[in-house]
Amino acid sequence: MPDADAFIQAFRRLAAGVSVITALDPEGVPVAITATSLASLAADPPLATFNMARRATAWPAIERGEHVLVHILGARNRELAQRMAGAQTDRFAGDHWSPGPHGLPLLHDVPAWMLGRIVGRYPVHESAVVVVEIEDGGLGAEDEGLLYRERSWFRPGAPV
Amino acid sequence: MPDADAFIQAFRRLAAGVSVITALDPEGVPVAITATSLASLAADPPLATFNMARRATAWPAIERGEHVLVHILGARNRELAQRMAGAQTDRFAGDHWSPGPHGLPLLHDVPAWMLGRIVGRYPVHESAVVVVEIEDGGLGAEDEGLLYRERSWFRPGAPV
Repeated sequence: MPDADAFIQAFRRLAAGVSVITALDPEGVPVAITATSLASLAADPPLATFNMARRATAWPAIERGEHVLVHILGARNRELAQRMAGAQTDRFAGDHWSPGPHGLPLLHDVPAWMLGRIVGRYPVHESAVVVVEIEDGGLGAEDEGLLYRERSWFRPGAPV
Repeated sequence: MPDADAFIQAFRRLAAGVSVITALDPEGVPVAITATSLASLAADPPLATFNMARRATAWPAIERGEHVLVHILGARNRELAQRMAGAQTDRFAGDHWSPGPHGLPLLHDVPAWMLGRIVGRYPVHESAVVVVEIEDGGLGAEDEGLLYRERSWFRPGAPV
C-alpha cells in the first residue's frame, strides 16, 4: 500500500450488495449503472448515495437528469446484473424492463426498487458521489440479496 | 412507499459488507463508526466514501480531524463489529486495538485496513457523506467478508 493495486486488493475483501441504477440520457435513451456502492444515507427524509465514474456512459444522464430508478438485486437477478454491466447495446434489448415513473426504465422481478430525485452531485477527481432522495418505490418477491466479492457473485450464506 | 418505513424495508434487502472507521476526537479520545456504507469511489487516486449521521458521537472527530482508519471486517470479526456498534464505554476497553498511524486506533486481526485522509465532507440534511483518499494500509489473514442484511450478520454463501 498505498498503490492502486493494494487498494483494489483491500476493497475486493469487502462484500457488497449489488444494485442497478437506471436513467434517461438527455436524448431520452435508457442508461444503466451496475453499482456495489449503493448505501443508505438517512431515513428521514429517505436519502441514499451511489458512486460512479464521470467518464461512464451514464454520466450525462446523471449530470443533467432529475430522477433515477434504483433497483436492489436478489440472487435470482445475477443474469440481469451481468447484462446491465455488459455491452451497452444489450442492456435494454429484451422485455426485462418497461417504462416506469417519469418514463425511466423499470427493471422487472427485483426484490425492491425506488424512485430517486437527484439532490446532490459531488465530483471528486474523475468520479462523483450522487445523492438521491427517495420519492416512491415498491417491493417485489423476496429473495436473498445478490452479493459481489473477490470478482464473483454470491448469495448470503450462514449466519455468524 | 415512500414513507420512511418502506424505504427502510427496501434497504434491508440490500446485503452490505461491514466496516469500522476509527478516529480521534478533538480531545484525542478514540471513536468508532460501524458502517455498511463503505464504498470505493475511484482507484487512481484511491478514494472511498462512507455515510454517517451528524448527530453521531464520532462526528466531531470526522468534522475536525484529518485522518481516519478504515477496517474491512471478516466473518471472524462479528464480535468486534457488535462491540464497535455498542455502548461507547465498551468500544475501546480491551486489547483488540492499539495506536496505529497518526495515533489512530488500529483494530487487530482484520482482513484489511486503510489509512484515509479526509478530502471531502458533504452535509445533507442531518447526515454527511465523507470522502477519504487512501494513503496507506495493510492486509491481514484472509477471511470471508462479514455481511449485514435484514438486521442479521452473515458470511458469503454459495456462488450464483
